[in-house]
Amino acid sequence: MKKELLPKVGRYAFMAEPFRCDFSNHLFVGHLGNSMLNAADFHSNDRDYGMSYLNKIHRTWVLSRLVIEMEEMPVAYEKFDIETWVEGVMRFFTSRNFAVKSPDDGKVYGYGRSVWALIDTETRQPADIFEVQGGLISEYVETDKPCPIDKPGRVKMGKDAALVRTIDTYYNDVDVNGHINSVKYIEHVLDLFDLDWYRQHRLKRFEVAYVAEAHQGDRLSLWKEQTGVDEYCVRITRDDDTKQEIVRCLMKFVKD
Amino acid sequence: MKKELLPKVGRYAFMAEPFRCDFSNHLFVGHLGNSMLNAADFHSNDRDYGMSYLNKIHRTWVLSRLVIEMEEMPVAYEKFDIETWVEGVMRFFTSRNFAVKSPDDGKVYGYGRSVWALIDTETRQPADIFEVQGGLISEYVETDKPCPIDKPGRVKMGKDAALVRTIDTYYNDVDVNGHINSVKYIEHVLDLFDLDWYRQHRLKRFEVAYVAEAHQGDRLSLWKEQTGVDEYCVRITRDDDTKQEIVRCLMKFVKD
Repeated sequence: MKKELLPKVGRYAFMAEPFRCDFSNHLFVGHLGNSMLNAADFHSNDRDYGMSYLNKIHRTWVLSRLVIEMEEMPVAYEKFDIETWVEGVMRFFTSRNFAVKSPDDGKVYGYGRSVWALIDTETRQPADIFEVQGGLISEYVETDKPCPIDKPGRVKMGKDAALVRTIDTYYNDVDVNGHINSVKYIEHVLDLFDLDWYRQHRLKRFEVAYVAEAHQGDRLSLWKEQTGVDEYCVRITRDDDTKQEIVRCLMKFVKD
Repeated sequence: MKKELLPKVGRYAFMAEPFRCDFSNHLFVGHLGNSMLNAADFHSNDRDYGMSYLNKIHRTWVLSRLVIEMEEMPVAYEKFDIETWVEGVMRFFTSRNFAVKSPDDGKVYGYGRSVWALIDTETRQPADIFEVQGGLISEYVETDKPCPIDKPGRVKMGKDAALVRTIDTYYNDVDVNGHINSVKYIEHVLDLFDLDWYRQHRLKRFEVAYVAEAHQGDRLSLWKEQTGVDEYCVRITRDDDTKQEIVRCLMKFVKD
């Protein structure tokens, strides 16, 4: 008997917990990103192609791109819902969108986009998404629901990026896969701007490309370049002989 | 007409979100601490002596002590409830306890204890708790419910503590009061131990005394001393001419 499909769009409830808000009483972008990743996880698990199932067949989702674009951030105690759905699926990648909304009046705080790769946890090589549960994910592709923000672009950086900080990575940076947590990179990058900057600017769009994995103990170098009015790119490299690029991101701020 | 009182013990539902778990798939202690602070906040707001009311009269709660003692930490996706209640109240301080339980079978993960001071947000001086809502909090004191872990003691450190790390503080470290977030100190201290340590040890008891406030941009020095078998104390001082003590804490680990 074929199992009945769930709705394509999942909706999950969150709250801007006061101790996860910044000095201005708005939810930290890192925590919003974390909630998006949780929503993605709940949505895919509920539909039988999430980590819970994948772990059994030595596969896992790896986040490749994340874009968050917000008109407004929830303030302390505000409840927000994250809707998430799969917009497209190819052999090695799938794209998943997010909408952040108020549960009360339907107000839209903003949107997100993400790209995920499926990998084999033993070989760390790309794995075929259509081989999972007989390609079940294809039945959940939702192309009609709008996500009115730009897709992740190619974050272009010149040679002028300046080394602005070198950081060590520790126990709290590491996730269950033994890698530096995706959200921790976001926090380290946003920490390059100080309170005075955030008093006058609001982060409107954050775009991150996860290029390679880093591990606890890796020393990371952060290179920053201004690429427009209130627009910055940051590249994170491993601070060893390889100088391997780990993460690249783009931030567009607006004056408050 | 007198408003009806709520139950003395509040119970709030949480979940060990997968991206808030460590390499071993257990909830980070910092996130558990954060959930306890949120439960405290919900409980006191629900009972009209929380931040929401206090902000209007230029008062706020300041965390002075926190103890977390766990038999077991929730693993990814496990739901847990935090019960919290006020155990005692004096003019300038109140003590609040926590029990962390499974909503399914009532299994107890562990307990917490905390001490809070009330201060005037303009003068930063202690304020009289009994003057808030006519001493309403006294009606919520619950002394019968057990909290079978030791009260916070005096964290004694000798002169042998070694300077083990100096860190800068950034945007993501700062809370809505403009101070370094209480939970961030816990994370910085637990980051003094590496993955290899956590592979063999579980943190059983964490005790922290918040002595003074630090602000974004403050450079903090961490001093560590072994005070017993698998027991360590850490002192955090401001890395300037004052060398002011900011935080002192005690960790008891057990071999896994």
